[in-house]
Amino acid sequence: MTKYFEDFAVGEVIELGSVAVTEEAIIDFARQFDPQPFHVDPEAAMEPPFKGLIASGWHTCALYMRLMCDGMLNDSSSQGASGMEELRWLNPVRPGDTLTGSYTVLEANRSSTKPHRGTVTFRSEMLNQDDEVVLRMSGRGQYGTRDAAKA
Amino acid sequence: MTKYFEDFAVGEVIELGSVAVTEEAIIDFARQFDPQPFHVDPEAAMEPPFKGLIASGWHTCALYMRLMCDGMLNDSSSQGASGMEELRWLNPVRPGDTLTGSYTVLEANRSSTKPHRGTVTFRSEMLNQDDEVVLRMSGRGQYGTRDAAKA
Repeated sequence: MTKYFEDFAVGEVIELGSVAVTEEAIIDFARQFDPQPFHVDPEAAMEPPFKGLIASGWHTCALYMRLMCDGMLNDSSSQGASGMEELRWLNPVRPGDTLTGSYTVLEANRSSTKPHRGTVTFRSEMLNQDDEVVLRMSGRGQYGTRDAAKA
Repeated sequence: MTKYFEDFAVGEVIELGSVAVTEEAIIDFARQFDPQPFHVDPEAAMEPPFKGLIASGWHTCALYMRLMCDGMLNDSSSQGASGMEELRWLNPVRPGDTLTGSYTVLEANRSSTKPHRGTVTFRSEMLNQDDEVVLRMSGRGQYGTRDAAKA
């Protein structure tokens, strides 16, 4: 059932499922990686412009990545990604939010120099329970081809 | 000693210090957020093209963020960032690596609509112990002004 490079269709939208965000998880991530007051201290975060604790943007990216693994990548021939474009944290992520991810295929190109793999250009989005986009970015992922897997 | 918007000079390079990356930390992050075989399973990661365990790209971003907090942001008037551009994972990060971060000021613009804050456009880089760039990206951060802090 593995998804190979050949299986990505331009325009396809892959729904990746949802994740609930707790205050504990927000503080836990931020204490390790982004200990700014508005990410780790609910009281300090009450001051403008934050008006309450918000998740680190990198936490939101990491949560999206987990949805992508569980919802698609770990049943695919993924060989990683080289980068992301236009990463935008468009709305704050707060304790109690439920985030839902999607992966839209924008382009799929077989490598001319390494024909056993191809590059999928995709748009990533994460929406909260009010259908507000909290994260949008695009990227390029490398995938092995079905040919290569058979060889 | 807080660094306000007015204190960022175009061309300034802020050295953010270093962090050592252990196999345990790589696996720990990846189990939570990016459980692909080449991030969580040293044996599976031996297969081409990885040739050994590599850190999740989001882990590298999170480690950079921590250096940025400790080396600058948490002694500044930072109000967060809205996004990143041209994020590139240029070389793999492996167990035993030591990563060093820098923050280069590309532009600094006071907001015309909210004069109590300004936007700093910056380039982020993380190098390993062999001076190979493992992460490069640029972003825009919001900072409060000294005027606003005095008011």
